[in-house]
Amino acid sequence: MAEQLRAVRTRQAILMAAAKIFEEHGYQAATISQILSEAGVTKGALYFHFQSKEDLAQGVLAEQDQSLVPPARASKAQELVDAVMLHAHRLSTDPIVRAGVRLSMDQRAQGLDRSGPFLRWSEVGVHFLRQAQEQGELLPHVVLSETADVIVGSFAGVQSMSQAVCDYADLVSRVSALMRHVLPSVVVPSILASLDLSATRGATVYAEAVKAAEEQELAGAVG
Amino acid sequence: MAEQLRAVRTRQAILMAAAKIFEEHGYQAATISQILSEAGVTKGALYFHFQSKEDLAQGVLAEQDQSLVPPARASKAQELVDAVMLHAHRLSTDPIVRAGVRLSMDQRAQGLDRSGPFLRWSEVGVHFLRQAQEQGELLPHVVLSETADVIVGSFAGVQSMSQAVCDYADLVSRVSALMRHVLPSVVVPSILASLDLSATRGATVYAEAVKAAEEQELAGAVG
Repeated sequence: MAEQLRAVRTRQAILMAAAKIFEEHGYQAATISQILSEAGVTKGALYFHFQSKEDLAQGVLAEQDQSLVPPARASKAQELVDAVMLHAHRLSTDPIVRAGVRLSMDQRAQGLDRSGPFLRWSEVGVHFLRQAQEQGELLPHVVLSETADVIVGSFAGVQSMSQAVCDYADLVSRVSALMRHVLPSVVVPSILASLDLSATRGATVYAEAVKAAEEQELAGAVG
Repeated sequence: MAEQLRAVRTRQAILMAAAKIFEEHGYQAATISQILSEAGVTKGALYFHFQSKEDLAQGVLAEQDQSLVPPARASKAQELVDAVMLHAHRLSTDPIVRAGVRLSMDQRAQGLDRSGPFLRWSEVGVHFLRQAQEQGELLPHVVLSETADVIVGSFAGVQSMSQAVCDYADLVSRVSALMRHVLPSVVVPSILASLDLSATRGATVYAEAVKAAEEQELAGAVG
């Protein structure tokens, strides 16, 4: 058990180091030896977890779609908004999430398949939208995959603009504005009226999600 | 006059070479000597036009907001859509525009101010939106700069997603979907009903704009 925990920590330390090196040098120029010396682990330990530079990059990319899930809501449109706003909040605060998003936006990272996060996020979007549709929350003309792609693609650009203009200082406001522009074309008016699309939504959902995760861990330890 | 023309051509050849080298190596790793040997011009010629690597990058970045202007329309909302769709069309077809957009999305290009194109495009957006507002085409709650930023940021991400997923093969459809999602929150219904937001709009506008530019040149030569 202790060994398993150690392996998880080593993996996380390697990912953190890889994230930092990819941020500093870019995917193309980064080398495994730089990541090794940053992580302070043995070559054996690194290759136990990751087989190549691309494997490391995929690990960093995958961090952005993991772990924290927004709490369930009566409105599935709100759950979709919560997932988006939670991601915006994590992006402004978590270095691995930030590095993963930058990697997905690195249009010169040759040989690295960057489509993964876009496609995975689209699937998450379709999942929420389908549930919302089944509850009658969506306007009749909505094509689930098209709307999911518009939201995922737009989010990617809005974060890039926020990073270029002010290093994410206004990210949550920009994402709130994006939601206010897109959702009126997606959900029925009665649902729209009850949605919380405010800029502070991400921080609220984050606090809730962390609390839920801690309680679950505690329940696991007691049970 | 012949000398002036030659200078314009040399400048364009240098920009094209810089675009290619930035695409291949990224801003960070690219060197002026690589650009020199790609362009096949003398060091003196290059430094006559551009003083530094950053200056070259700014030249490439500036290419995306130049020259081709969408023809005037009765509806200024349509003119805004036309500018967006024309840009999408040029992005799928013009290597310098493509390189400029990639440079603006290069989140690791340290020391390069990438905010320029975002801010310039936002200004263009505000300009069209203000005219549309004056003609009563916009919904009353619209905040011009916020809506312009949503459109510019979203466009940047939608193009990045299209490039990652299929190297721009579906770019114009994705941008059309983006317009159909955002504009219902921006323009009044009667205008919305008359807008052409279709995926082929960019190619149509491009043909019109090129024709108009040629006619203007011809008129200038005759006059």
